[in-house]
Formats: sequence, structure tokens, C-alpha cells
Amino acid sequence: MTALSFTSPTVRELRRLLARRSARHEAGRFVVEGPVLAAGAVAAGWACVEQFVAAGSDTVVAGAGPVRELGPGVLERVAATEHPRGPLVVVEIPVVEECPLADAGLAVVVDRVQDPGNLGTILRSAEAAGADAVVLTPGSVDPFNPKVVRASAGALFHVPVVEAALDRLVGAGVELIGTTSHPGGGRTVAAYTEADYCGRVGIVVGNEAAGLPEAWDDAHGPIRRWVTIPHVGRSESLNVAMAATLVVFEAARRRATDPSHDPR
Amino acid sequence: MTALSFTSPTVRELRRLLARRSARHEAGRFVVEGPVLAAGAVAAGWACVEQFVAAGSDTVVAGAGPVRELGPGVLERVAATEHPRGPLVVVEIPVVEECPLADAGLAVVVDRVQDPGNLGTILRSAEAAGADAVVLTPGSVDPFNPKVVRASAGALFHVPVVEAALDRLVGAGVELIGTTSHPGGGRTVAAYTEADYCGRVGIVVGNEAAGLPEAWDDAHGPIRRWVTIPHVGRSESLNVAMAATLVVFEAARRRATDPSHDPR
Repeated sequence: MTALSFTSPTVRELRRLLARRSARHEAGRFVVEGPVLAAGAVAAGWACVEQFVAAGSDTVVAGAGPVRELGPGVLERVAATEHPRGPLVVVEIPVVEECPLADAGLAVVVDRVQDPGNLGTILRSAEAAGADAVVLTPGSVDPFNPKVVRASAGALFHVPVVEAALDRLVGAGVELIGTTSHPGGGRTVAAYTEADYCGRVGIVVGNEAAGLPEAWDDAHGPIRRWVTIPHVGRSESLNVAMAATLVVFEAARRRATDPSHDPR
Repeated sequence: MTALSFTSPTVRELRRLLARRSARHEAGRFVVEGPVLAAGAVAAGWACVEQFVAAGSDTVVAGAGPVRELGPGVLERVAATEHPRGPLVVVEIPVVEECPLADAGLAVVVDRVQDPGNLGTILRSAEAAGADAVVLTPGSVDPFNPKVVRASAGALFHVPVVEAALDRLVGAGVELIGTTSHPGGGRTVAAYTEADYCGRVGIVVGNEAAGLPEAWDDAHGPIRRWVTIPHVGRSESLNVAMAATLVVFEAARRRATDPSHDPR
């Protein structure tokens, strides 16, 4: 077997899958780095196409597809991490049916969040809390971005991720609950510990800098109910991933204990 | 005023303060980057020594000390961030009295956490939840590391941070509550939503890889009570910053609402 060079067409395609959202979505494939995450993808039943390892490496993951060897130094130049560990596994992006939306009892809705670490953390929290789906609005960071995959610590493989606009969620009968760090403006804003999370609900968290659009505050917007996280500190607010963690765990707890909630 | 070169003694000292814990603690100074954080340090009353800006820059922060100009490209080479914004403000590390330990009603205790982003997030959550102190055990990442300062989003300036071993906390009368993602082993482990957080308590979170030492499970260790975060997902666990966020907010809420808690 000949080790692949940095400029070979195969490695060039691998680099495109790591670097570009458009390349990932054209090919319907993305890259999972390292033995732990790769084993997680295999265990979750995701279809692995092939795995790239440094020449002579023995960190091959069973079930992660045929092994291709990279020439000296190629793994280091290609991988998204600073101290990469192979394999780099090319994995197929699953086709998510509409059903997660139609069936979701509890969804976390991520509105144009930009930071890969934040989205990865939100995926991790949503999955751990038992959310049925994570919905990304158009303009959000790509969930198959290598930094998101890594920050999700494998949660990406276990919770359905759908792209959809808020209006489509409302159309599907999901009641949206917006999170805000700036209560007021005529809205009814409840403490997140006091809100009602029964039924089919989507907890909406907003963009890091802008939050959720002010225009959605009115009676015609997609969001009718709002929650906030009261805090006593003098810092401005929690970041979006921490806020999402607190609210989704609270929602899951209340759904589990509230007798008025009809579990699906 | 002459702009300072990269190799000038003044800039060399600035680089040492950014790069080395030992240099920070010898000098009793650290560096705060950017106008927002620097203004936060000033507003919180932290003593600023001097501020370094790119030559010709007008992003000077009022109250952040005398302005020193850096030569072309020096800010970019010195700063810890990828796209640095001045000023770089040299700030005195405050001398924290023992009193935060003696007086703390609710403390977050960080045991040998290594990742600056995690510690920054924990500081932010602890401050937002209203914790009285954050305690770091020896071997934890330096809270004055520039990445911690940035990730704390200014919370560092508003919550007392103390270095102390767990035994000293126990000696000071703080009851330690350990967090674990691996309940069992003969310990009594409560769901974090069911635990008692009254009195003077320290919520202990452990190192990213190792958690809290197994040896502390026995009756002679510093930790007598344990909590865990039940989760339904298939991922292994939440990360330490997310776990700390959930538990400290739960503790603060329970302390605020539990009638048996005698507020200090």
C-alpha cells in the first residue's frame, strides 16, 4: 500500500471535507477524528466510508472502514486538532427524516449560534438531558464542522439534528419557548425554574452576540413564551451553552416529575 | 513617546506575564486583554498598573493606568488571542484574605481542573449563581492565565478566588459535597436535585480526566457526601464546567427557597 501524499487527490478531498461546509454537504460526508469519537460513530451505527492513519500507525478502529495510510507528516497537516491522533474517519451524513420534528416532545432549537464549541456543548447537554431532537435554524454553524463534532464528545451520534426555520416548527405544532437574558419589553418572561415545559416544546437559544431577535417579542412572532435565568452576579450573562444546559435539564426534570405532563 | 519593540525589556516582561504562571505570581501581576475585560477590571476596582496599545490606537481604557505604545506588529505577537484588540492591561493580583473561606456560605471547589476554558466557565457560573468563593486546589490551572481570564468574561473580577487544599476547607468548617459521574462503590450518592445544600458547603468538581480521587470515597476522606447528575443520554458524561453549572445553580436555588436554610 502506498502512503498518500498531502497533494494527492484523495487527501485533497479529505481536507475539503474538514475545511468546508459546502464540500461536506455536497459529498454527504464528514470527518470524525481520533479513536474514541470514531469508535462512538461505529457503535452508534453511523456508516463509515474509510479511515486514514499515519503510516505505520496501529490506531485503527474496527468497523470504521478500509484503512488508508498517510505519508509522513500528512496527518499533522490535515487534521483539525493541534496534536492529532488518527484515524481520520470519513462518515456519511445521515439523512434525517422529518419525523424527529413531528414526534419531538422536547427539542432544543439553536438559532444562528456561531461558535462550534458552543454548539458541541449544546448537543452534549441536549443528549444527556434526553431531548428528542436538536433543531438548527439556517445560519447556524454546521453540526458536522470538526470542532463541533469534537466538542459534542459523541453526542452528535445519539441525538437527531435537523435544520429547520422556526416557522416550520410552529407549523409542526411545537410550542417555542424563547430564552432571554434581557427580560422586559412587554413580554411575559418567567424564571426558567417556574415555566411550564409540558407538551411538545422547543427551547430556543439565540446567537451569541445578538440573542433572539427583538422582533419576535410581539404577538405575531414564532415565540410566545419566554424564560430567563435569574442570576445574582454582576457579570452580564451566562453564555449560550451554559444557559441551554440549565434550561434543558430543568425542562427534562419537570417533564419527568410533573403529573400533568402526558409522556409520549 | 517611543513605541516599544518586541525585544525591549518592558515587552519581554509583558510576555512573561502572559506566558508564565511563575512570572505572574512572582510579580503579583497578570494581564487583561481587550477593552471590555479591561473596563470590567477597572469597574470592579482592581488596581491597574499600565496599559499597552498598538501605536496610534485610540482604544485606551479610562482608569487602566498610563498608556504605553507598542511598535508595529508587537501587539499581534504578544497577545494571547488570535485577533488581538488592545489594550493589554497589567493588573495587580489582589491579595485574598482568608476570610472568603471562613465566611463562605456556598463555595465552588475546583480540584486540579486543567483546561483554562473550563475554569473560566466555572468562574462565570459560580459568580452568576452567587457563590461566595471559588476555591482551587493546588495543581489547578492558574486563574490568572489569560485564557481563563477571557473565558471568565469578567466574572474573575467579582468572585473571590482562593487556593486551598480540601483538608483546609474541612478544617475551616466547610462541608464538602463531591460531584461524580460514576455513582457506586459503597458511597451514598444523591441526585443533585435531591441533595441538601444548607449550611456552609463546598461543591467539589474534579479533574477532567480523573474526576475526584477514588481514595476520597472512604469515611476518612475529606468528602462525605456525593451528588451526581442523572442523565438519560448515551454519551459518557457532561464535562466538568457543565456539571459545575448545573450543581451550583441548583444549590443556589435551594438555598434561596429552602426555609431550613439560615441565610448568612
